[in-house]
Amino acid sequence: MKATATFYHAGCPVCVAAEQQLADAIDPARFDLEVVHLGETRSRITEAESAGVRSVPALVIAGQPFHINFGAAIADLK
Amino acid sequence: MKATATFYHAGCPVCVAAEQQLADAIDPARFDLEVVHLGETRSRITEAESAGVRSVPALVIAGQPFHINFGAAIADLK
Repeated sequence: MKATATFYHAGCPVCVAAEQQLADAIDPARFDLEVVHLGETRSRITEAESAGVRSVPALVIAGQPFHINFGAAIADLK
Repeated sequence: MKATATFYHAGCPVCVAAEQQLADAIDPARFDLEVVHLGETRSRITEAESAGVRSVPALVIAGQPFHINFGAAIADLK
């Protein structure tokens, strides 16, 4: 069974670069990658926060959050 | 031909978590991943800085640096 990897972003330039390179580099044989645009899908901001996401872009792998560079604070997306 | 991905770290807890999950999630079919411990291999600090690395852990994919969470500033490793 594949693990889940969720890439949260907000469409900012930092996010787009991270999505194109880092999220795209995740092994599709082992991870189901979902890309979530929090600016367009605000209903999932709470879910991201619960996973420990404090800024975007962020990648949550098997429940553990990794913040990548710094695009925007999640508080600013609300 | 595979692209190069270089994971720079310094052995700190934040680095170890990132290596075990995020670096390990990189697709081995498309990337040659090298893990570099800058605390033990100080001769490569300059190379990391040239790639734009400002803190560790960081992952450089095809020349572009992505800083992951925050373990230590590269200046503190010198």
